[in-house]
Amino acid sequence: GDRFVTSPIAANTAKLQEAFRHRRSVSESLTRGLSAEDMVVQSMDDASPAKWHLAHTTWFFEAFVLNKYQDNYRPVDPDYNFLFNSYYNSVGERHARPLRGMLTRPGIEAVRAYRRAVDASVLALLEQPHPRARGLADTVTVGLHHEMQHQELLLTDLLHALSINPTAPAMRPAPPADDTRAAGLVFMPFDEGLYEIGAAGDGFSFDCEGPRHQTYLRGFSLANRTVTNAEWLAFMNDGGYSTATLWLSDGWAQCQAEQWQAPLYWSQRDGEWHQFGLYGRQPVNPEAPVCHVNYFEADAFAQWAGARLPTEQEWEVAAGDAPIAGNFQDREYWRPRAAAGSGLQQLYGDVWEWTRSPYAPYPGFSAAPGAIGEYNGKFMCGQFVLRGGSCATPQQQLRRSYRNFFYPHQRWQFSGLRLAKDL
Amino acid sequence: GDRFVTSPIAANTAKLQEAFRHRRSVSESLTRGLSAEDMVVQSMDDASPAKWHLAHTTWFFEAFVLNKYQDNYRPVDPDYNFLFNSYYNSVGERHARPLRGMLTRPGIEAVRAYRRAVDASVLALLEQPHPRARGLADTVTVGLHHEMQHQELLLTDLLHALSINPTAPAMRPAPPADDTRAAGLVFMPFDEGLYEIGAAGDGFSFDCEGPRHQTYLRGFSLANRTVTNAEWLAFMNDGGYSTATLWLSDGWAQCQAEQWQAPLYWSQRDGEWHQFGLYGRQPVNPEAPVCHVNYFEADAFAQWAGARLPTEQEWEVAAGDAPIAGNFQDREYWRPRAAAGSGLQQLYGDVWEWTRSPYAPYPGFSAAPGAIGEYNGKFMCGQFVLRGGSCATPQQQLRRSYRNFFYPHQRWQFSGLRLAKDL
Amino acid sequence: GDRFVTSPIAANTAKLQEAFRHRRSVSESLTRGLSAEDMVVQSMDDASPAKWHLAHTTWFFEAFVLNKYQDNYRPVDPDYNFLFNSYYNSVGERHARPLRGMLTRPGIEAVRAYRRAVDASVLALLEQPHPRARGLADTVTVGLHHEMQHQELLLTDLLHALSINPTAPAMRPAPPADDTRAAGLVFMPFDEGLYEIGAAGDGFSFDCEGPRHQTYLRGFSLANRTVTNAEWLAFMNDGGYSTATLWLSDGWAQCQAEQWQAPLYWSQRDGEWHQFGLYGRQPVNPEAPVCHVNYFEADAFAQWAGARLPTEQEWEVAAGDAPIAGNFQDREYWRPRAAAGSGLQQLYGDVWEWTRSPYAPYPGFSAAPGAIGEYNGKFMCGQFVLRGGSCATPQQQLRRSYRNFFYPHQRWQFSGLRLAKDL
Amino acid sequence: GDRFVTSPIAANTAKLQEAFRHRRSVSESLTRGLSAEDMVVQSMDDASPAKWHLAHTTWFFEAFVLNKYQDNYRPVDPDYNFLFNSYYNSVGERHARPLRGMLTRPGIEAVRAYRRAVDASVLALLEQPHPRARGLADTVTVGLHHEMQHQELLLTDLLHALSINPTAPAMRPAPPADDTRAAGLVFMPFDEGLYEIGAAGDGFSFDCEGPRHQTYLRGFSLANRTVTNAEWLAFMNDGGYSTATLWLSDGWAQCQAEQWQAPLYWSQRDGEWHQFGLYGRQPVNPEAPVCHVNYFEADAFAQWAGARLPTEQEWEVAAGDAPIAGNFQDREYWRPRAAAGSGLQQLYGDVWEWTRSPYAPYPGFSAAPGAIGEYNGKFMCGQFVLRGGSCATPQQQLRRSYRNFFYPHQRWQFSGLRLAKDL
Ligand SMILES: [Fe+3]
Ligand SMILES: [Fe+3]
Ligand SMILES: [Fe+3]
Ligand SMILES: [Fe+3]
Repeated sequence: GDRFVTSPIAANTAKLQEAFRHRRSVSESLTRGLSAEDMVVQSMDDASPAKWHLAHTTWFFEAFVLNKYQDNYRPVDPDYNFLFNSYYNSVGERHARPLRGMLTRPGIEAVRAYRRAVDASVLALLEQPHPRARGLADTVTVGLHHEMQHQELLLTDLLHALSINPTAPAMRPAPPADDTRAAGLVFMPFDEGLYEIGAAGDGFSFDCEGPRHQTYLRGFSLANRTVTNAEWLAFMNDGGYSTATLWLSDGWAQCQAEQWQAPLYWSQRDGEWHQFGLYGRQPVNPEAPVCHVNYFEADAFAQWAGARLPTEQEWEVAAGDAPIAGNFQDREYWRPRAAAGSGLQQLYGDVWEWTRSPYAPYPGFSAAPGAIGEYNGKFMCGQFVLRGGSCATPQQQLRRSYRNFFYPHQRWQFSGLRLAKDL
Repeated sequence: GDRFVTSPIAANTAKLQEAFRHRRSVSESLTRGLSAEDMVVQSMDDASPAKWHLAHTTWFFEAFVLNKYQDNYRPVDPDYNFLFNSYYNSVGERHARPLRGMLTRPGIEAVRAYRRAVDASVLALLEQPHPRARGLADTVTVGLHHEMQHQELLLTDLLHALSINPTAPAMRPAPPADDTRAAGLVFMPFDEGLYEIGAAGDGFSFDCEGPRHQTYLRGFSLANRTVTNAEWLAFMNDGGYSTATLWLSDGWAQCQAEQWQAPLYWSQRDGEWHQFGLYGRQPVNPEAPVCHVNYFEADAFAQWAGARLPTEQEWEVAAGDAPIAGNFQDREYWRPRAAAGSGLQQLYGDVWEWTRSPYAPYPGFSAAPGAIGEYNGKFMCGQFVLRGGSCATPQQQLRRSYRNFFYPHQRWQFSGLRLAKDL
Repeated sequence: GDRFVTSPIAANTAKLQEAFRHRRSVSESLTRGLSAEDMVVQSMDDASPAKWHLAHTTWFFEAFVLNKYQDNYRPVDPDYNFLFNSYYNSVGERHARPLRGMLTRPGIEAVRAYRRAVDASVLALLEQPHPRARGLADTVTVGLHHEMQHQELLLTDLLHALSINPTAPAMRPAPPADDTRAAGLVFMPFDEGLYEIGAAGDGFSFDCEGPRHQTYLRGFSLANRTVTNAEWLAFMNDGGYSTATLWLSDGWAQCQAEQWQAPLYWSQRDGEWHQFGLYGRQPVNPEAPVCHVNYFEADAFAQWAGARLPTEQEWEVAAGDAPIAGNFQDREYWRPRAAAGSGLQQLYGDVWEWTRSPYAPYPGFSAAPGAIGEYNGKFMCGQFVLRGGSCATPQQQLRRSYRNFFYPHQRWQFSGLRLAKDL
Repeated sequence: GDRFVTSPIAANTAKLQEAFRHRRSVSESLTRGLSAEDMVVQSMDDASPAKWHLAHTTWFFEAFVLNKYQDNYRPVDPDYNFLFNSYYNSVGERHARPLRGMLTRPGIEAVRAYRRAVDASVLALLEQPHPRARGLADTVTVGLHHEMQHQELLLTDLLHALSINPTAPAMRPAPPADDTRAAGLVFMPFDEGLYEIGAAGDGFSFDCEGPRHQTYLRGFSLANRTVTNAEWLAFMNDGGYSTATLWLSDGWAQCQAEQWQAPLYWSQRDGEWHQFGLYGRQPVNPEAPVCHVNYFEADAFAQWAGARLPTEQEWEVAAGDAPIAGNFQDREYWRPRAAAGSGLQQLYGDVWEWTRSPYAPYPGFSAAPGAIGEYNGKFMCGQFVLRGGSCATPQQQLRRSYRNFFYPHQRWQFSGLRLAKDL
């Protein structure tokens, strides 16, 4: 994992152990209140069961830390390498993704025992001096960032699973309603010029975030906040979902085939739009950022609004040195909040922001060597970059250079948008 | 339910209550040792989760007994009529069948509470005199026969769900191996003539089993027992699965498309054929009846053997007055056993026997009135009749006139075959 | 072909040659006025191009007559055995059915040359005495009956191909409109009893039409004529296509999925129903028999009408010795006509009549030996029998015992229905 | 069409008329020797019938020139706007793309008459002074470039249609074999720096080719020629098609699902690889450029070769001022030729070169207004850019800035690749 520049997620071994304990315990705590049944089902091919997330993140430490750094390591269960490998061809055959929800065995208790056993082994390994201490620390660090990614996915996938239950069950009781009014929409200008973007190498980052490189940008302006539900309702009321000329060709075809009429999880009840979320079904809050729209919808909205989506380079330049702060998973307010302040708001947290940038290698990119090299590079085809994190993202996961990526038709992420314009 | 002639499943109310208590408790006991996860998954569209079977059979009593015979009955949960209706269009909208495995809520404990509540209501209802006592008793009786059908399906569907787990888990520990040698194959002759078949009306039967009617049969002979695994291996070794001319046209197309090479649940390990079952994966027992073959396979085997499948009329005539005895679910030996004796063996139990008879209405048939009329008649298209019951069938379920039916490509039932010939 | 009892289609060789010349020329004349483009396309998997019909029927004579009965026969083109075999596994590999419309080469002129060459060879072969003269005559006779079947299919498939052209082109100019009023609907009774049905062996018949055998029928009554468009409109207006309880379960699922609202080829224009046919798009004639309905629709209609479809045995018994006369292909009035007379009308011609009988082997049936044995037996699964022929059927094709068969969802045949009732 | 900067395809009206006559006649001459059947079929959804190309390009002049610039223009046939619109939502409803091959009417002769009528109208329109002369000339020019694109597609689609004919028919007799030896592989360096790319506005170009803009490039090197069949065979022999780690994730999934083992149109006969082409099936020429590979294959090859695909910016910078010369459609040598010379070879002609650049808007891009704005922009999602033209591309079509684009799985274009490396 030496291609993933490691951050001082932990300055020393004791800190790394502490970080490990904390991060691993967060995964467990996310499943508080869920039944074994809630955690076994897979509601679509794109999603995974909560139990699988718990097991797969554990397997990651087994496959890349314990197997590589502990002599004579004996796996907790020889079947698990097959069952809980996600997509690493280098690590061997694996269970078919669409069948993840069929694994009633091992049960949730066995998976929790698996977690405890691997945690104990990793902590014991970190306790002792190691001839490849740097590689070990780096790989554990990768594992923790990997765990954070799956912590977001766990919530995202759970939301989808609950959403298809006709009884619309809430994961947890709803927090108090938020009566913040969203700030007025303002476009903020940025100059033409040659900029540097990408990870600078002064902390952990994934291989796809680098190398840092120069890019030439035209002048552009960026909206001060993300698009709100009220603005989205205006788009809907203006026939946004039935006007072909607003849409990319592939998006329009799918919009018609699947009869999209509103964001995912929206439904109309007694003439009013409601949104299903982790807190159950509730009236749409017009001030909050629109969420669970895909790239096609975001792009059509921008067309309708006489604007466009930003590129990821523009976003990163605009983000500048803003602090990585916002409504992240850690706050346990798992729905997007309205942004009230002045200046560029909501760069981080609340909703992922679709960019118009296809997920592609930066100039000079090459994938990390070994199995971990399969982490990012092989997905650089057909997907678009999202920036900024969401209310389901662990705060420590985010960086200015962080590149998330999904296919343009996918809607189940906490994804919204921010408008941009040419100057 | 007056079109389902009711049997003295219970001669009086006390007996009916007892029968009800017993039958309902059997469903629960079948899930002994299963986890909540085992009971929630749906492994294919044709199968249903164990939890769903527990809930749906309960809904049946709510919809057809309590709603119809108890004044002012208030359902346990108003959502359940939507969630647990299987296919009764007359009773309203219902949850999509392929999504049954997505119902993590209500959980298994809630479903068990549902069972207890409905059981108490039904028993209380039976406790009092009722102005429509006959209809009430009849409908409860239908509900118990319905419950028996789902008891078999529960095992059958669970087997499928476990079978797609790469770790091949057993539902229960295997009973001692059976070293019975199968009897030699003998064909037993039956005379040409005009026969009567169908339910005689002297006990419970489903509407599709009647009316009793005359049918003219040519002379035929019937094998003394079902086809064994050893005989099936001979078919396989002789190229049975790769010889187009043995197969029905539709069967051959599907055989090639899905690359059938052996019965469902068979796999080769170290050169030897194994069979997955409720007791895990074990070497194929050559003496036992072949099981989990579909109609296409059964028909191709019969062609290969220079024989044919019997018609259901032939089977019923041959069954004559033989006692309804054999290896049924009640014995808890949930795999087919070899048949050793002389005379016609295994008419009942062990494996369902495919007949060449399409599932069609008997002369003079008309469906029962009301919602229960959807029970059988609307499925009389494209399916074939199976006779005799299996090791997963409750004994009380079976009758000489009992008609089971499945599509010719379906393999997951405990289905085998018995050969017949023209005289 | 000795299992197909041959009729005196020709009492002697000269007559057989004449019959051959006539029948073969009919195929050509059916394509009068069609362009090469009209004849190459395949509008769905179930249909075949007109050119393919011309070539395949010719291949039949090459494969089964010339290859078998002429010494050292050299095929016209060695590729044709691959290209124009329909489904005979015994005769070798063949071109995939859904790709028949991709064969731009050989062109229509090459196919016509193929026909001429094979015709000359067959006629020359018949000119000389042959050591297996009976087998030769029989096989040529089978070939002529096969050609007749494809003559109907050619029209049926062409109708489908033209129907999906948005310009609704007519194959030929429409004949004068028919102002016959349909006879009133009357049910005619038939007695319970033991009857004989099936081909008697006194003329040509396909293997599936025999053996002749006894069958016991309850008393029944049969409608004097087929169901009319006016009656079908009443069914539609009464919500026939949206009432689940009228339909077989599989039919209802498909009715909803494909949104059937009227027979195939019907469309509404300015509030009036029109029907597309070989003569283009024209207003529905209320007096004419309904046509292009499938089994599911026919069965639902019968339910709605408080009746049922007849069995094929009932149809055959009722047909008795009625002459094989009616509106057949030979009249070149290629749409169904209203039936005006008294007594049982329209047994033959106009529209095929769906029966409720699954296409299954008669008692004692075994398929013809050799490749021709693939003709019928291997299709005895999942299809239903139709009786009586249509306005697209060559008259000589029909017999009282003739069994046509299609899947219950198929609508593109000239298929209608006649009602029956229990007595 | 004022957003498509028009080139002096014709300096004045007389020249434009001449250009129009020439370009339109080329379309006709491409179909020389083809039958009506060859021109009607559609061999897959991605392809269109030759007849459709002839009609659609004509419709383009009707819809965008005659309807817009000729007063009271009456269309040749009112159905044609529905039948021959490809994807312009602004121009109304249209015939479903996958049904293009079902249009047996209008026949090829009617389509040719359509061409003649429209040609006469356009030429007559150009004969007279016109109040919007510039717009008229521009739109005719767009129509001619559009026609050129379809001239390539006509050949490409025809090749596919012929390729699925089991008899492997040639479109035309093969020209003499080419015994050129390919030049040795050399990588040529290019400096890091800020470059300008995109259409400069000094001639015709499509909207997506601009605006001209600055882009910052790292140093890179580019192969002197495209990859040869010999090199591709080495990749194949080294297990290229079975080594997961070489492939993009989506590519590997499809490679396995569709069992790719060689470029499209390759097949092994007697142990030797052959390639089907417009001249029939012939042994693979090891010296010629590999052709009919998709993006996934091209990318995997580059990985295997320790290189990468170039970006489109790199390609355009490297192309510099090289003359637009090479083996284009006009030479009527419709297969790629080996490149022998020194320096950068084959930039133009022979095979389209996949770049690693997703087809995306250039900075400052906005689509042309009106219906012609649907030409390019709405396809900017999920596709990759190809550069340089092929042996099937009309020479006049190409420009240094010309951007072709296809989905990464598509193989039926004349597409190959050229390697690049980071410096
Ligand atoms: Fe992962
Ligand atoms: Fe049920
Ligand atoms: Fe045929
Ligand atoms: Fe076009």
